[in-house]
Amino acid sequence: MRSRLLIEYDGTEFAGWARQPGKRTVQEELERALGVVLRAPDGAGPALTVAGRTDAGVHALGQVASYQGPPAQLRSLNGLLPDDVAVLESAPAPAGFDARHDATSRAYRYLLLNRPARSAVRRGRVLHWPRRLDVDALVACAAALAGRHDFTAFTPRETHHVRFEREVVSAAWDRHEDGVLEFSIEADVFMRHMNRVLVGTMLEVASGRRSIDSFVALLDGKPRSAAGQTAPAHGLYLVGVGYAGERVLGRG
Amino acid sequence: MRSRLLIEYDGTEFAGWARQPGKRTVQEELERALGVVLRAPDGAGPALTVAGRTDAGVHALGQVASYQGPPAQLRSLNGLLPDDVAVLESAPAPAGFDARHDATSRAYRYLLLNRPARSAVRRGRVLHWPRRLDVDALVACAAALAGRHDFTAFTPRETHHVRFEREVVSAAWDRHEDGVLEFSIEADVFMRHMNRVLVGTMLEVASGRRSIDSFVALLDGKPRSAAGQTAPAHGLYLVGVGYAGERVLGRG
Repeated sequence: MRSRLLIEYDGTEFAGWARQPGKRTVQEELERALGVVLRAPDGAGPALTVAGRTDAGVHALGQVASYQGPPAQLRSLNGLLPDDVAVLESAPAPAGFDARHDATSRAYRYLLLNRPARSAVRRGRVLHWPRRLDVDALVACAAALAGRHDFTAFTPRETHHVRFEREVVSAAWDRHEDGVLEFSIEADVFMRHMNRVLVGTMLEVASGRRSIDSFVALLDGKPRSAAGQTAPAHGLYLVGVGYAGERVLGRG
Repeated sequence: MRSRLLIEYDGTEFAGWARQPGKRTVQEELERALGVVLRAPDGAGPALTVAGRTDAGVHALGQVASYQGPPAQLRSLNGLLPDDVAVLESAPAPAGFDARHDATSRAYRYLLLNRPARSAVRRGRVLHWPRRLDVDALVACAAALAGRHDFTAFTPRETHHVRFEREVVSAAWDRHEDGVLEFSIEADVFMRHMNRVLVGTMLEVASGRRSIDSFVALLDGKPRSAAGQTAPAHGLYLVGVGYAGERVLGRG
């Protein structure tokens, strides 16, 4: 049988989702804990397939993973996992369910704290941006993202991706009550670093170092060198994943 | 001349605000950094007077402190402070200004995450409460707090306090969009552990282990033994301080 997990993690101390020899990864921690809870005869947990392979330092509030095997008991699983990973739901999934291939969209957010002083309480959770930003420019850039575009400019030149077109379902900048600026975006699939280069380039527009028009022109398949800096990982969150007829969302 | 600081800190790794020999405290870190920025001849910074002496583990988004001396440059100060303390404002204050004695009110919040699974991203920032809570009962308890009451039941029996009456300006429970429950309270002065015993006792009401009436009866000077458990420190935040005609607030 197939099972599905909804997962939250603090990316700070992880080398990302995917297993890498000699590095601490979310996948390895989860597979190990699953192996114990499910009493795998060889001690190794089932292999997880994941909706969004997040990079080092990126957080998740609603990551989704699937595996071949029965669901694990939530409390036992969370009791075995380290503090910076938590499983929010553990449930049986339809036959053949694959968290990655069946996903129709992924939703991310990027959090920005725009004030002179850094934050002590939200450090590692938001990007601190002490300089003035033109929020109207951010809003205009986000408005240009909806629809189908070629995002070649927003992923590293050396890449395993073969198609660079992506369908953006929605994208927006909003200001929270506490002064945090939030960029939220949902698309069919994201490429490596795509969100972080989008945010980094929009920050150049909002800082007056690039025009809105030049940002929009990048969506036409311009080379990586034409776009801006890659924003730091610690402001980025995978917030949820869409499946046919269903949106699986984490909760802050 | 007098100066005033608005301060944010993550209380996790601190033994509280006030200096204690051999322990890491917010006061010591700040006085040390101020000593460097203000080039104190003896290397020691000015002595700080603080609006709310928070306990070990309690966070602050809007703590206020005063000292005798010129304001320090914000960027230099934050550059010298550790990651878990930040100064949000550094400004001259009126002659004779005393952050503690001039304060007319303090505002606190307590954050509670009421869901089955613990949080990885908000760990150390909210109290995780996996069991069912009667939110209407929480709301009814908070509504009883406004006004003048004798809070003897809500502070340890061995105490340096001599008066136990406090004036509560406002108190309420609200539910955030992300499912977090927030208790917010403003009063003239708080006693040691007062907020944490209030929250701990209200949680007993909301768990069906104590009646709303018995909670209200505690506000009449009942002994400490009649109230409930002290809720953990890591859900509590000092959010701001009121002064005659002005409210100084931190920002999340």
